[in-house]
Amino acid sequence: MIRIGIFGATGYVGLSLMTLLKNHKEAEVVFGHSNNYAGKMYKEVFRGCNSELILSTFDQCLDKLKEVDVVFLALPHGISFKVVEEAMKHNVKVIEMGGDYRLDDPLEYEKWYGVKHTSLEYLKEAVYGLPEINKDKIKEARILANPGCYATASSLGLLPIISAGLCDTKTIVVDGKSGTSGAGRGGSVDNIFSEINENFKAYKVACHRHTPEIEQVLNTKSKNEVKLTFVPQLVPMTRGILITAYVDLTADIKEEKIFDLYKDFYKDAKFVEVIEEIPQTKWSKNTNMAYISVRKDSRTNKLIIISVIDNLVKGAAGQGIQNMNIMFGIPEDTGLDDLAVLP
Amino acid sequence: MIRIGIFGATGYVGLSLMTLLKNHKEAEVVFGHSNNYAGKMYKEVFRGCNSELILSTFDQCLDKLKEVDVVFLALPHGISFKVVEEAMKHNVKVIEMGGDYRLDDPLEYEKWYGVKHTSLEYLKEAVYGLPEINKDKIKEARILANPGCYATASSLGLLPIISAGLCDTKTIVVDGKSGTSGAGRGGSVDNIFSEINENFKAYKVACHRHTPEIEQVLNTKSKNEVKLTFVPQLVPMTRGILITAYVDLTADIKEEKIFDLYKDFYKDAKFVEVIEEIPQTKWSKNTNMAYISVRKDSRTNKLIIISVIDNLVKGAAGQGIQNMNIMFGIPEDTGLDDLAVLP
Amino acid sequence: MIRIGIFGATGYVGLSLMTLLKNHKEAEVVFGHSNNYAGKMYKEVFRGCNSELILSTFDQCLDKLKEVDVVFLALPHGISFKVVEEAMKHNVKVIEMGGDYRLDDPLEYEKWYGVKHTSLEYLKEAVYGLPEINKDKIKEARILANPGCYATASSLGLLPIISAGLCDTKTIVVDGKSGTSGAGRGGSVDNIFSEINENFKAYKVACHRHTPEIEQVLNTKSKNEVKLTFVPQLVPMTRGILITAYVDLTADIKEEKIFDLYKDFYKDAKFVEVIEEIPQTKWSKNTNMAYISVRKDSRTNKLIIISVIDNLVKGAAGQGIQNMNIMFGIPEDTGLDDLAVLP
Amino acid sequence: MIRIGIFGATGYVGLSLMTLLKNHKEAEVVFGHSNNYAGKMYKEVFRGCNSELILSTFDQCLDKLKEVDVVFLALPHGISFKVVEEAMKHNVKVIEMGGDYRLDDPLEYEKWYGVKHTSLEYLKEAVYGLPEINKDKIKEARILANPGCYATASSLGLLPIISAGLCDTKTIVVDGKSGTSGAGRGGSVDNIFSEINENFKAYKVACHRHTPEIEQVLNTKSKNEVKLTFVPQLVPMTRGILITAYVDLTADIKEEKIFDLYKDFYKDAKFVEVIEEIPQTKWSKNTNMAYISVRKDSRTNKLIIISVIDNLVKGAAGQGIQNMNIMFGIPEDTGLDDLAVLP
Repeated sequence: MIRIGIFGATGYVGLSLMTLLKNHKEAEVVFGHSNNYAGKMYKEVFRGCNSELILSTFDQCLDKLKEVDVVFLALPHGISFKVVEEAMKHNVKVIEMGGDYRLDDPLEYEKWYGVKHTSLEYLKEAVYGLPEINKDKIKEARILANPGCYATASSLGLLPIISAGLCDTKTIVVDGKSGTSGAGRGGSVDNIFSEINENFKAYKVACHRHTPEIEQVLNTKSKNEVKLTFVPQLVPMTRGILITAYVDLTADIKEEKIFDLYKDFYKDAKFVEVIEEIPQTKWSKNTNMAYISVRKDSRTNKLIIISVIDNLVKGAAGQGIQNMNIMFGIPEDTGLDDLAVLP
Repeated sequence: MIRIGIFGATGYVGLSLMTLLKNHKEAEVVFGHSNNYAGKMYKEVFRGCNSELILSTFDQCLDKLKEVDVVFLALPHGISFKVVEEAMKHNVKVIEMGGDYRLDDPLEYEKWYGVKHTSLEYLKEAVYGLPEINKDKIKEARILANPGCYATASSLGLLPIISAGLCDTKTIVVDGKSGTSGAGRGGSVDNIFSEINENFKAYKVACHRHTPEIEQVLNTKSKNEVKLTFVPQLVPMTRGILITAYVDLTADIKEEKIFDLYKDFYKDAKFVEVIEEIPQTKWSKNTNMAYISVRKDSRTNKLIIISVIDNLVKGAAGQGIQNMNIMFGIPEDTGLDDLAVLP
Repeated sequence: MIRIGIFGATGYVGLSLMTLLKNHKEAEVVFGHSNNYAGKMYKEVFRGCNSELILSTFDQCLDKLKEVDVVFLALPHGISFKVVEEAMKHNVKVIEMGGDYRLDDPLEYEKWYGVKHTSLEYLKEAVYGLPEINKDKIKEARILANPGCYATASSLGLLPIISAGLCDTKTIVVDGKSGTSGAGRGGSVDNIFSEINENFKAYKVACHRHTPEIEQVLNTKSKNEVKLTFVPQLVPMTRGILITAYVDLTADIKEEKIFDLYKDFYKDAKFVEVIEEIPQTKWSKNTNMAYISVRKDSRTNKLIIISVIDNLVKGAAGQGIQNMNIMFGIPEDTGLDDLAVLP
Repeated sequence: MIRIGIFGATGYVGLSLMTLLKNHKEAEVVFGHSNNYAGKMYKEVFRGCNSELILSTFDQCLDKLKEVDVVFLALPHGISFKVVEEAMKHNVKVIEMGGDYRLDDPLEYEKWYGVKHTSLEYLKEAVYGLPEINKDKIKEARILANPGCYATASSLGLLPIISAGLCDTKTIVVDGKSGTSGAGRGGSVDNIFSEINENFKAYKVACHRHTPEIEQVLNTKSKNEVKLTFVPQLVPMTRGILITAYVDLTADIKEEKIFDLYKDFYKDAKFVEVIEEIPQTKWSKNTNMAYISVRKDSRTNKLIIISVIDNLVKGAAGQGIQNMNIMFGIPEDTGLDDLAVLP
């Protein structure tokens, strides 16, 4: 039984971890941290998640570190440094759900996150948790940086064509669309129903933090340096990410061949399926699946890649659990199969 | 292993059965009927439900009856009579998800459903599948009539106060609200997104088929005859039912006492929870739970009862599986625990 | 030209006043107050509302009172007392959009609003602005209390049957459903999209402030004292109110006769239409119309009344402008005709 | 008074024409055609649109051509040819809301619409109705081809930078997002609420009919041939289009200069506003406005253009009325000012 602690258990990522872990037969949540609800039983905060865990303060949770094998950190950025240090002292593995250990270069981190990185040694050690390309390192990881939601959908969509070296790596466009749970559980006028309902908008145009993360992932598999333009957008729905990526093909290659290449790239991936139909976000809802399809626009020789995930599952909690499973040597899909909710 | 056949596998009730049964460790779906998609693999129709079952025609499914232990019928009303007859011949149990075997009186059936009942013998035998009051009969049932979605939410909300004989049984009001999946998967202008979004409406005012069904259930526990007014309404959301019931208290009784009475009534019910807070539909989303709360309006001596379920789980597929579990002598909650999806 | 000032111009009621008044040919907004946006141009706050008005602070607006003929107060309760006093000094009429001058009895006000009423003299003078029953008084009013949104829909639905003395006045149930704009423009976790989307809930069960307001209106037309039970509920949509009212008929009267009675009651009402079909909230969207229909449940001898309005138009800003028109002797529908937005 | 006939008066474009024209002081609708509702009064079909027009059959409307000055054709493609011919006989102007007269080249029409063009002479005469670039021709037009919704948003967004010759015309990406009313009022399973709600999907990837239309418009202002990739996507909301366009800048130009260029391009346009903030679809809801903003991604030297309109107003009925106003020599914004609905 893997013993788990969760910091930030009452945001949407924490909530998704709690609900998904209820289905995990080889793991149990030992403690959960919440600033707002410490002292309350989890099911009193979220009816529906049938957990009787009593939530704890941050300091209480630090004290309980020795009782667990792994902690998930679902915290605002800049706060995890201290927890990582404590966890390492107690030989507790860390799965960081935020952005603090994703970018290799601490200066890039500072530039995009506006905070100085103060955990340089552990940053060097941290492993980027995209299992489809990094499984061997994940097995050995003590500190795992769980990928961002947009970064997961985008990287999975672009990796095969980038790896094959068949496209211009400097002209890539990633047009992302996300449900509102990606914006978290904070009360602000911009997030209220009356403002978001019947509305569609872009935000952080060409300046979203997942931009350097996607580039970093793609660069690990690319001969030429990757630079891309990324625009995230908000969809009036709660869950789901769809990214539409546009790349300039540099070779004359048929659509079928590209499909073959994609299918081959993911032939061993449990949670990626390359399909002929254009995927919809609902297909991945409450599953750990990424569905990917491609179309070649022969009029312009562009390849269009469409990739969907559930932002809270493969884009956050599900992938975190997948990584945990790999880190602890149990089957990758433990607790993650057959979760779909339709319609 | 319980072997299952599903008639009507590609409507929303069929889809919910398919997705929930993926989590059921002691049951497997052997065949699924679909008029529109026969010959297709299930996951080609519904990505997300990761089933490789090949769908069959109605006649093919009748031929396969002998391969299964139980069939679920998720068909339009009036069609199940024939399947029930065939199933009985082959000693196959039936769980009827529609309205064909719910009303004891065939004349009432004809009046509300507009179709003559032609399966009188089996109607007499059929057991109404509300486990909270009928578990012993369900254990022995060959033909199970699974309750309607509104009827489930309403009956569970009203049974304790009716059984206690503390209210006027002739002045009850049930104001029901349902998500759109209750209207099924048919394409009609009234159901399209542009018409339903940003809209709220009542329908079948005081003439919905669940009215006599609720009365029949309540009458089994009431000294005085129950007559109620029921108005169903459509909420612009996919899943969930909330009913607000209003009853005139005939005794001078405190709110706390009524809570006690409700908690006691459901003390053995796995899937009903009486809570202090006013429940919301989201709390029961993708779970088999009914959440119930009450408030006494001392200004008017009315009791207000609020009850929520997921119309496709406790209101249909989940309750059907709960009934199946009871019929086959396995734990009632097999395959039904820890399904919640939040937010 | 009627010169107008608006206190609270950047909440949803203020916004609705601003957008509707753009269409009003005989009125102009001279000043608008906003705590959060003072100094900004209105169209910078709300693109879409093409107004170049520069917003002012509360004190600046008090100073500008003498420049206007009428002020609309769209403020939290308890704040209007002071503005009313100042306005009276300058002979400026007041249309109070909140609850401060709606209840005749200051003790009832204190009980339901939790604030002591400190403007007793003006409270006595204030006229309740439901034009369908109060037009003559509205013509002469200096201080107008604009009705609440639920109160408008409920009163319009119940007045004809109450006035006719055909029902029990002590057993009335009003089950109300509102879009989220009724909850205002405040950022709180409960109001965010991810929480409200795909959710339906009741709130302030049997303790909402519009309860005594509805009773007070009905009592003006009733021989017997009216006491009712009111439950408000939140629909995942931005605009619209539908109320379903249930009354016990005390006479043996046919549905057609009740329709006649309703049509007769509203034969001179510009903004109420009694229709055979069951109305939907969308029909009244962005119009000042109330649509009302009735059904008699002959099984229980209850009358079911369904009434819809747009909570921000007939339920707030539209009715406020209708009242202003009457107060200033211009046609009642000036600026209020032909606003509908469909689908 | 301009006398108007509408073919296809009960689809969403027809409905938008009917509701907007209620506000038009110099036009009146004389007849409206509807296959499904002929014989009914308009307000019986769409409560909210307060019109007492009796709908007519197609043939009845052909007979009434002589009673009007202009007809709007909101018909499926391929049907307008006959009406245009009849209208020309009676000297009635035509505003074609569909795609039948938009593409200059009849072979392109046949390729993208799958129908042979049989009205070649009138096709040659038809004027493309984008007032921002074509006003002089529109003034003289007898047959006006009203632009497509995506084409309007995309062309308005791209014209300034294309005209300035500052970008590569062969690598343009247009990523479009539309509300569901763009899909029309047909009942099909794909359009029902339960399928579209909480879902986001792409469709007609790189094969949508507005692709050649956008290229044709841009080519009129471009030195180099324009070829672009266009992907439309469906947002779970009723109204609104947002397009995100990506172009490779060929010069070293600052963002401020691009803003200047855009503002200058539209300095005389009543219904286009270039703004610093990133626009949202809600800002244009129920208005005839297009809001446009740009961002330069200096990391990749791409220009990102975001443009929003209401698909049923500037994207259809509103632009049609704007064109009618110009054709009949009355102020361009007659009946089109101050329509906004917020929130």
